[in-house]
Amino acid sequence: MTTQSARVRVAVNGYGVIGKRVADAVANQEDMELVGIADVDAGWRMRIAEQKGFRIFASLDDRTEAMRDRGLQVAGNLDDLLRDAEVVVDCTPKPLGAQNAEYYRAHGVRFIVQGGEKHEVTGHSFVADANYASAVGRESTRVVSCNTTSIVRTLIALKRVGLLKKARGTLMRRATDPWESHEGGIMNTLVPEAKIPSHQAPDAQTVDAELDVVTIAVKVPQTLAHMHSWSIQLTRNSTAEEVIDAFRQSSRIAMIRVDDGLTALNTVKELMADLGRPRDDLYEVALWEDMVAVSEGEAFYAYMVDNQAIVVPDTIDAIRALTSRDQDPQASMSKTDAALGIGSKLV
Amino acid sequence: MTTQSARVRVAVNGYGVIGKRVADAVANQEDMELVGIADVDAGWRMRIAEQKGFRIFASLDDRTEAMRDRGLQVAGNLDDLLRDAEVVVDCTPKPLGAQNAEYYRAHGVRFIVQGGEKHEVTGHSFVADANYASAVGRESTRVVSCNTTSIVRTLIALKRVGLLKKARGTLMRRATDPWESHEGGIMNTLVPEAKIPSHQAPDAQTVDAELDVVTIAVKVPQTLAHMHSWSIQLTRNSTAEEVIDAFRQSSRIAMIRVDDGLTALNTVKELMADLGRPRDDLYEVALWEDMVAVSEGEAFYAYMVDNQAIVVPDTIDAIRALTSRDQDPQASMSKTDAALGIGSKLV
Repeated sequence: MTTQSARVRVAVNGYGVIGKRVADAVANQEDMELVGIADVDAGWRMRIAEQKGFRIFASLDDRTEAMRDRGLQVAGNLDDLLRDAEVVVDCTPKPLGAQNAEYYRAHGVRFIVQGGEKHEVTGHSFVADANYASAVGRESTRVVSCNTTSIVRTLIALKRVGLLKKARGTLMRRATDPWESHEGGIMNTLVPEAKIPSHQAPDAQTVDAELDVVTIAVKVPQTLAHMHSWSIQLTRNSTAEEVIDAFRQSSRIAMIRVDDGLTALNTVKELMADLGRPRDDLYEVALWEDMVAVSEGEAFYAYMVDNQAIVVPDTIDAIRALTSRDQDPQASMSKTDAALGIGSKLV
Repeated sequence: MTTQSARVRVAVNGYGVIGKRVADAVANQEDMELVGIADVDAGWRMRIAEQKGFRIFASLDDRTEAMRDRGLQVAGNLDDLLRDAEVVVDCTPKPLGAQNAEYYRAHGVRFIVQGGEKHEVTGHSFVADANYASAVGRESTRVVSCNTTSIVRTLIALKRVGLLKKARGTLMRRATDPWESHEGGIMNTLVPEAKIPSHQAPDAQTVDAELDVVTIAVKVPQTLAHMHSWSIQLTRNSTAEEVIDAFRQSSRIAMIRVDDGLTALNTVKELMADLGRPRDDLYEVALWEDMVAVSEGEAFYAYMVDNQAIVVPDTIDAIRALTSRDQDPQASMSKTDAALGIGSKLV
């Protein structure tokens, strides 16, 4: 039973857009065991989880009966699930994660909250490639949001090779998630976030306080993914090749090309489907290599961010960091990437 | 008849999205006379023109019969129209304007082409507030495109007060015009222009070669208007108030406020309708005053560009410049603005 007991026992609380992807990814790691998922839903989403063989728990006690009435096999409540887990990944809608944090602490279980929660909930914000080491052995961390994850991944790549001075970006945000797009979306308009910088730039600084970054965010009427355009002041004159190399040598940034026919968000999504990725997920920042322009100490580029998927690999790494399974960031990231099929190239 | 003969006799060739607005605006100027419009359409668009009392000509001879068959009173062909005009505004789809240029020259009529044509067609590119004087008495000019017009208006405002060093912008472009949105649009995706800088930055430099400007352009799935977000390097430390004042003191930039309920493109369009603007047109750059952020020598802002309307006032000014009716830019712009109801405030 040595191997068995060495595996990290992981619970997932909240089985929505992120939670279901995290649960699949956990179940997919050789060194982890998914002990169960908790939610309040009694409908089709839980039946799919049951078909996958996941043990189901009721996040709220008063939902147990409704879930059982709909024929779900409910293994217990959240207390029962947490007793069995070494770490819980909270994927509930904000700000429930902040409320749940105290509950997790009372149960003595390590926990991860998602980027919708405030930095203060855990006092640590996580992007694997940037600050894995500082999360090792911690009680908790917060995996930052999709946009922030992409910002940190790309800017860290430039910082690491000494090229980054200042970064100024425009975020074209998908208006809502696909599965909820029958309500609460926007149509045929653009909606700016009223404040400059938008919230993502200060959020990136919770991971790396040295980043000189400003963002302007605008909601756009589509549901596929976010897209960013960036204007970077470099520390010195450089070339497109050097900037592209910095991205290539970094983690979870995949180069794509317009002249390869990847001309828009939808063509990249189609590629994910054809690659057989689960749920057509794009875990990488997909950055258009043949758009990168560098001129006299400035770089310009654009990339796509799959808001549903990009934080999944970092969440898996955060599990290993909190439970001290890997001290070395690269060891954990390599395991995660291998399990999810992540590389520096998509085609 | 002194007053009558002093009026500029204007023809409009091409009665589409821009042409019909230019025709209305010309008919609305006290010092201009619309001698007729030319097109190839035989459908509803021409019948509206007829109802307005405009004289209709066939742009192509072989369309005359089809137009008469549909009951239109066709006054003649393009030759006939040009014989009667001192200046023609070409509003045909690109690249027809380039072909027509030789024809206009042969007829000895001054001409204006739209921004879809190349700078070389006329050798002069026009934004009233930037370079009216250099167009006075010329045979021809090109009124630059909607996006370029907005870029020049806003950057000139900052340049004039000595604040502008470098400008880096992201253009979120409406995918197609509303009246054509039943075909050729995009849905639920984003499509980057493959090249950085996108074509608008070099285009702005055809009006003012000194502008240090780079643009990244992305098509978005809506039809209302374009939206730009900008990151500006200033020549010195400044304040939001100073930047806003520079915009206020410039021309055809209207300040709007998120906290006034103007939270998105559609709310601004609704305001245009409620103001009674023809076709709900927004001639100004509508710039969000309460989003403007200035920090240590940098400014950030976002604005809306009504691609169907913004070039109309500049086209009217270009008519006065070519025909030497006003030597003073401000004299012409004031007349145009008064006739179209343009101010520095919308509400």
